[in-house]
Amino acid sequence: MTTATQRTPNPFTQDDYAARMSRVVDEAVGAGLTGVIVAPGPDLVWLTGYQPTAITERLTMLVLTADREPTLVVPTLERPDAESAEGAGALTMIDWADGSDPYPLAGSLLRADGRFGISDSAWAMHLLGLQQARPATSYHALSQGMPMMRAVKDADELARLAMAGEAADSTYLEIIHVRFAGRRETEVAADLARLLREFGHEQVDFTVVGSGPNGANPHHEAGERVIQPGDSVVLDFGGLMHGYGSDTTRTVCVGEPSAEVQKVHDIVRAAQQAAFEAVQPGVPCQEIDRTARAVITDAGYGDQFIHRTGHGIGVTTHEPPYMVEGEEQPLEPGMCFSIEPGIYLAGRFGVRIEDIVTVTENAGRRFNNTDHHLRVVE
Amino acid sequence: MTTATQRTPNPFTQDDYAARMSRVVDEAVGAGLTGVIVAPGPDLVWLTGYQPTAITERLTMLVLTADREPTLVVPTLERPDAESAEGAGALTMIDWADGSDPYPLAGSLLRADGRFGISDSAWAMHLLGLQQARPATSYHALSQGMPMMRAVKDADELARLAMAGEAADSTYLEIIHVRFAGRRETEVAADLARLLREFGHEQVDFTVVGSGPNGANPHHEAGERVIQPGDSVVLDFGGLMHGYGSDTTRTVCVGEPSAEVQKVHDIVRAAQQAAFEAVQPGVPCQEIDRTARAVITDAGYGDQFIHRTGHGIGVTTHEPPYMVEGEEQPLEPGMCFSIEPGIYLAGRFGVRIEDIVTVTENAGRRFNNTDHHLRVVE
Repeated sequence: MTTATQRTPNPFTQDDYAARMSRVVDEAVGAGLTGVIVAPGPDLVWLTGYQPTAITERLTMLVLTADREPTLVVPTLERPDAESAEGAGALTMIDWADGSDPYPLAGSLLRADGRFGISDSAWAMHLLGLQQARPATSYHALSQGMPMMRAVKDADELARLAMAGEAADSTYLEIIHVRFAGRRETEVAADLARLLREFGHEQVDFTVVGSGPNGANPHHEAGERVIQPGDSVVLDFGGLMHGYGSDTTRTVCVGEPSAEVQKVHDIVRAAQQAAFEAVQPGVPCQEIDRTARAVITDAGYGDQFIHRTGHGIGVTTHEPPYMVEGEEQPLEPGMCFSIEPGIYLAGRFGVRIEDIVTVTENAGRRFNNTDHHLRVVE
Repeated sequence: MTTATQRTPNPFTQDDYAARMSRVVDEAVGAGLTGVIVAPGPDLVWLTGYQPTAITERLTMLVLTADREPTLVVPTLERPDAESAEGAGALTMIDWADGSDPYPLAGSLLRADGRFGISDSAWAMHLLGLQQARPATSYHALSQGMPMMRAVKDADELARLAMAGEAADSTYLEIIHVRFAGRRETEVAADLARLLREFGHEQVDFTVVGSGPNGANPHHEAGERVIQPGDSVVLDFGGLMHGYGSDTTRTVCVGEPSAEVQKVHDIVRAAQQAAFEAVQPGVPCQEIDRTARAVITDAGYGDQFIHRTGHGIGVTTHEPPYMVEGEEQPLEPGMCFSIEPGIYLAGRFGVRIEDIVTVTENAGRRFNNTDHHLRVVE
């Protein structure tokens, strides 16, 4: 039985952060890199627990190399906040004063001819500053050079992802009892956001409500359209809980579905199940995409499945590994990602089914476990 | 008299966006650049009205050069959203399919040996992708190469900034009547956020409540500290209204101030006024900083004024021009920025006073107009 006590995850400690930083240095060297440069954002949160109050033009960066202690460069003003991060004790901190040029200082931490991985989302202005301060250095986006840096989750991370998934499931089990017909998409989206928070999310990242033709645009969020009887409605929602992500999609129907909606839904459901069953260690990510795509293509809807099958999830709701053609990375135990095939009939309707899945020693395990039937709502 | 009707700003039109894009090309050429590469974020909003629902690893970029129409590269999935932006009619759109490599396509829009300005906050991974696709191109952060791209506001922008300033002032005039003593900083911060929204803000960016010693950390936001009688409290709050920023700071005192708090406040107030009076076209930005700093240094607190005097404001609450030593950019009519000197006595208290100011033909004009007396609150 689940109790409130069990639902508080183990806090991450300074030792956890030290271990992650050490592991990343080893992986960087193994990948042929001199080290890694980490910008504010999810990589920095994962490595140090430090999240600046805002990401600005002021340089903050963590330098991880084999030849020195982990070093965090921060603006003097932000040093007190940085020092309060859980992982701060595991690194050296260097600050630079407002008005001074931080790049020579930051560049001095980098071997002159070093090859560095850098956070994808590091600001271009900071990369240009480093390239100018150290012209012989070279850089590679971390998602290219070390794409799987955060991909394998440890037990405490998996526990958080499982909790976030449960909360998303609880949200779905409530949302199917609200009224759809006659309400605006934005009203149902607000219900989803409220429920995610009620079930423990501290952050809501997306609440897609794609009714009727809006469901055929996979990037539609929620609009002023009034949901009609007979609409299928794509519900895709998630956010962060205890710092880890949720992301699930179900497609419901307002009243009995047409034969076509039911048929398309059956195909997507079969594609999702086939891809899930293909999950096991050693299988290349692209194989998960191919498996889902084969089901949909064989059914004649290949051209209407217009996105990759899935994305990783962790401290963000969207990260490597990607389940996409060309991604040869083998699945490893502890990886977590979405499986979310869809079919989009432009101007008419769309269907998508999505679960977060983790790789165990010999199979896949879902963090979303609500059933896949095409649910009829009112 | 202000009426609700007057308070709705003029919408920006496709022609407004076309004019901005054309002006930026001219400025780029004048700055010795081949063109400008704009990433999702404030630059793109300002140039096209387009704000992707999320900024992701998927390349979206606007290319502005003299030799072709403005061209927006977008993921296929996001094209429908991009096409609904107000400025979309003023540009050519090119989309790239999920799973393909967008950099050769994007690179083909760039002259092989071109020099380009690029949005500060463009992702490093995208810059690296372009550098690889077009090795002979060179790049400069827009805040370096064309720092004043958005700095001069037109009449419709000034009207929005004035409205946002009025709403922040209304917030201050309400917050001084709430109870401070015995409440947590976070509770007062929540009041500030609520009031900003009530007075029309669609987005709250910061609600700093720095009581007693917390006021001495200029990057403190609001914490669990219970505000005490006798505390001075720094209140620094703002966000976006009709897409344009507010940002104002007043320091209040819970009960009668000590002689020292009053003295420090008088110095900061004099510094703020002196800097304001120094505003006129042609004056270098650093002169505004020097003017405020001279007052504080002459009073013996120079080492306790540990940040620049101000920052620009527009579609973000923090942008060029910066009022900082070394910034020689002359002020121009239509520029808008904060003047916010402060004195921070570590472990004890801090004082800051901040108004948003715009440059007129011959002076400065405040968008924040609540008085600067050290206000006593309960």
